[in-house]
Amino acid sequence: MKFESFGENLRCVVVGSSGGIGAALIEQLVASDQVARIHALSRSGRSHPSPKVANLTFDFTDEDSLVAAAQALQEVAPFDLILVATGLLQGEGISPEKNLRALSHEGFAKSFEINTIGPAMTAKYFVPLLRRDEKAVFAALSARVGSISDNRLGGWYAYRASKAALNMVLKTLAIEIGRRFKNQIIVGLHPGTVDTGLSKPFQGNVPEGKLFTPEFSAEKLLNVIDGVSEDDSGNLFDWAGKQVDF
Amino acid sequence: MKFESFGENLRCVVVGSSGGIGAALIEQLVASDQVARIHALSRSGRSHPSPKVANLTFDFTDEDSLVAAAQALQEVAPFDLILVATGLLQGEGISPEKNLRALSHEGFAKSFEINTIGPAMTAKYFVPLLRRDEKAVFAALSARVGSISDNRLGGWYAYRASKAALNMVLKTLAIEIGRRFKNQIIVGLHPGTVDTGLSKPFQGNVPEGKLFTPEFSAEKLLNVIDGVSEDDSGNLFDWAGKQVDF
Repeated sequence: MKFESFGENLRCVVVGSSGGIGAALIEQLVASDQVARIHALSRSGRSHPSPKVANLTFDFTDEDSLVAAAQALQEVAPFDLILVATGLLQGEGISPEKNLRALSHEGFAKSFEINTIGPAMTAKYFVPLLRRDEKAVFAALSARVGSISDNRLGGWYAYRASKAALNMVLKTLAIEIGRRFKNQIIVGLHPGTVDTGLSKPFQGNVPEGKLFTPEFSAEKLLNVIDGVSEDDSGNLFDWAGKQVDF
Repeated sequence: MKFESFGENLRCVVVGSSGGIGAALIEQLVASDQVARIHALSRSGRSHPSPKVANLTFDFTDEDSLVAAAQALQEVAPFDLILVATGLLQGEGISPEKNLRALSHEGFAKSFEINTIGPAMTAKYFVPLLRRDEKAVFAALSARVGSISDNRLGGWYAYRASKAALNMVLKTLAIEIGRRFKNQIIVGLHPGTVDTGLSKPFQGNVPEGKLFTPEFSAEKLLNVIDGVSEDDSGNLFDWAGKQVDF
């Protein structure tokens, strides 16, 4: 893809690079002539063979790990793009709740840990590494099911709550950052329902043509990032670039 | 006050009865001839002298304590009103963040624990104890600063995020409950800025006449609860009965 609103020699950070969407974002960035360097961070430290990619093992639930990563990245900053592509819907002992009876303390705590606190703490340490002269974007994967006003079906209490909380973190961050650096844009992204491990158990109800490949979603999301401007900061956008109400 | 939409011999549960607003809600309920019984639950188990009040020591962060309380309340159910009047803005080792640098894992985890997970787990065990024949309300204290779209000032990341998450839990709950029991109404309440321990350090910026006594706020909130109907379920209302966008 061609970025219209960014220049050349782009330096990017992708957090959660071993997830389905994270890996696809890296592929898109590797393929772009405008991108010079990609720092791929994940718990597994899965390595990408491209010489453009620097792989870093990292756990955003561990503040020491965040501080160490920020120090390493400081050496190669500033960045044009920081993408947080993490997310937990099920696994690690939790599953999305079909009803009130299924609510569990652990389900909530784990969902907030991965879907809200991790991205927020990543913002704390990484947003100061964004460039301050030209357009720079900090984007995190959120989800339409994290929209309170759009909630029609119910269920998935902890996942929904953790994504609503993430949307609030991003909005609050955008207000703070916007006071000092108008060029820095903070957005939440809804990737659509993407054929990844996260959505695998829930793909049965997806209408035909609405289950995206990670490649399709990643390209769309980068297009959205290319299209956003100062006035969009703090908001949530879907893969097609349409703003989603909170 | 006089409840217009409820009958007589009302049975009520107040969770967080030792907080400023919780205690004021109990006073209002004690003073109402329509209220027969109030079950006052708090960590401190602070006792109210009225013979209408049954005091129960209880910690909603402890699932065993929730199960035990629900079993005790089962004996005296069903309830017309269940009010969750808890909330943590600062204390217990945390304080609201003025900026990104102040974000802490503990601040987030503690805020979600008290402001989101506790009320959600209370709903899990107590909502099944609401009456199923006539109007019944489960209400939880939320806050206007938990509105993402209304966020203009920034700051207070964890508190804001935890209240946005609570609003999502209440909305999700309302959808589930509304499918079976149209008479049961779930709402979030913004009490205004009330002269309690929670707001004490932040009262300097409150415009004159906008710092409410707990008595004033409690009466207004009960009026709001009296006024809500099936169509309002899942939404957030301020002390004046005005709906607050998410």
